[in-house]
Amino acid sequence: MRNIRLVIEYDGTNYAGWQCQKAGVKTIQDALERALFAILRRRARVVSSGRTDSGVHALAQTVNFKAASAIKLDKLCQGLNALLPEDIAVVRAEEAAEDFHSRFCARAKSYRYLILNRPCRSALLRNKAYHLSYPLDLKRMRQGAKALLGRHDFRSFQAAGSACKDTIRTIKKIKLGRDKELIYIDIEADGFLYNMARNIAGTLIEIGRGKFAPGAMSRILAARDRRTAGPTAPARGLCLMGVKYE
Amino acid sequence: MRNIRLVIEYDGTNYAGWQCQKAGVKTIQDALERALFAILRRRARVVSSGRTDSGVHALAQTVNFKAASAIKLDKLCQGLNALLPEDIAVVRAEEAAEDFHSRFCARAKSYRYLILNRPCRSALLRNKAYHLSYPLDLKRMRQGAKALLGRHDFRSFQAAGSACKDTIRTIKKIKLGRDKELIYIDIEADGFLYNMARNIAGTLIEIGRGKFAPGAMSRILAARDRRTAGPTAPARGLCLMGVKYE
Repeated sequence: MRNIRLVIEYDGTNYAGWQCQKAGVKTIQDALERALFAILRRRARVVSSGRTDSGVHALAQTVNFKAASAIKLDKLCQGLNALLPEDIAVVRAEEAAEDFHSRFCARAKSYRYLILNRPCRSALLRNKAYHLSYPLDLKRMRQGAKALLGRHDFRSFQAAGSACKDTIRTIKKIKLGRDKELIYIDIEADGFLYNMARNIAGTLIEIGRGKFAPGAMSRILAARDRRTAGPTAPARGLCLMGVKYE
Repeated sequence: MRNIRLVIEYDGTNYAGWQCQKAGVKTIQDALERALFAILRRRARVVSSGRTDSGVHALAQTVNFKAASAIKLDKLCQGLNALLPEDIAVVRAEEAAEDFHSRFCARAKSYRYLILNRPCRSALLRNKAYHLSYPLDLKRMRQGAKALLGRHDFRSFQAAGSACKDTIRTIKKIKLGRDKELIYIDIEADGFLYNMARNIAGTLIEIGRGKFAPGAMSRILAARDRRTAGPTAPARGLCLMGVKYE
């Protein structure tokens, strides 16, 4: 059996997220498994580095699947890109080691959260950025973000009701920048709890608009209580930028 | 009568271009005039700096219209953004001088043509960039572009069968750049003939892939014959970046 790794890009706008759900619900995984079935003539179960929610995008999601097929990687890539809907694309196909697993072997993931900070909404970025018309103070947001760096219990940023018990994660990098009317929040961590990236973005926004003090971030972390953090920022602003492996 | 100027942004993917056409054809102008009618309760004819084709985008198209209404500009802006489809947005509304005309007063327009130059297609940029999988030589393209700078007869780059007789235009700036897998062609001119930006992009691509020599550009200009230039690059790669007035 070959173990094939794909790097895929998708526009999450028209999908109910990565993971297969009940019949009639459009997901990225379904679309990919359907295209693979058409090429391999066998059902292949695709594993990703992690789920992404409905509306969340990926520039470089990593997935893998086992296949007995002898198909060449470039043919597989071309075939998938011909069969997949236009809002999902295969960027690269590679042979992976037998024991490679997209989720378990992932060492770090990077997400970008994009905010359009100007009075009027945008037509071109309507599904790619969260539009906020009130001014955000980037300096305050950067101060707040500093407290997140390193190994912490991120329970306050995990979706309420989430089953995950081990809520310790390490944020390796967190960088905020501005490009004209766009503000981006880049976060690299060894793993993300459910909604963690969007809850961090929502909390940094509260700091940026002056509702929370930059110093509140340490207290929010220490509280280990979702209710202390800011709201969940909308899915459309979030994009999985890449997954790192050893 | 007030003369109101709007700066608008649009995603041209789902429109048959800027200009009103026969009934049942979706255009940007129609959508804007319909939203204005709902606000002003009177029909307003909107003039733009120029037409854009089906699939062509605008980051900052300038339009104007006459209105007797006393509506405040910020209310007009908010009202239009609430009524317009999400792929059209008003970025700014301003009072203009009585004799201001978006087309006749325009001194320069800038377009960006975007090429995604990598083996596989993209999901996120599917409607915003022209995907080319063969390598393009940016140095050759820059050499070819140089010949276009300045005042020339651009008849070779005008759509065949176009009625426009005065084909002299001045390209004030032409700049090519690369950002990872993206190549952009920025052109500023005092005016553009029909399809001129896309025909220039198509010709530069032929130079970049080695089908034309960089020196061919001067001969194409001199020929004043559409058949000597490259093909028309697809609309989706083109975006009107801005219009300059005195």
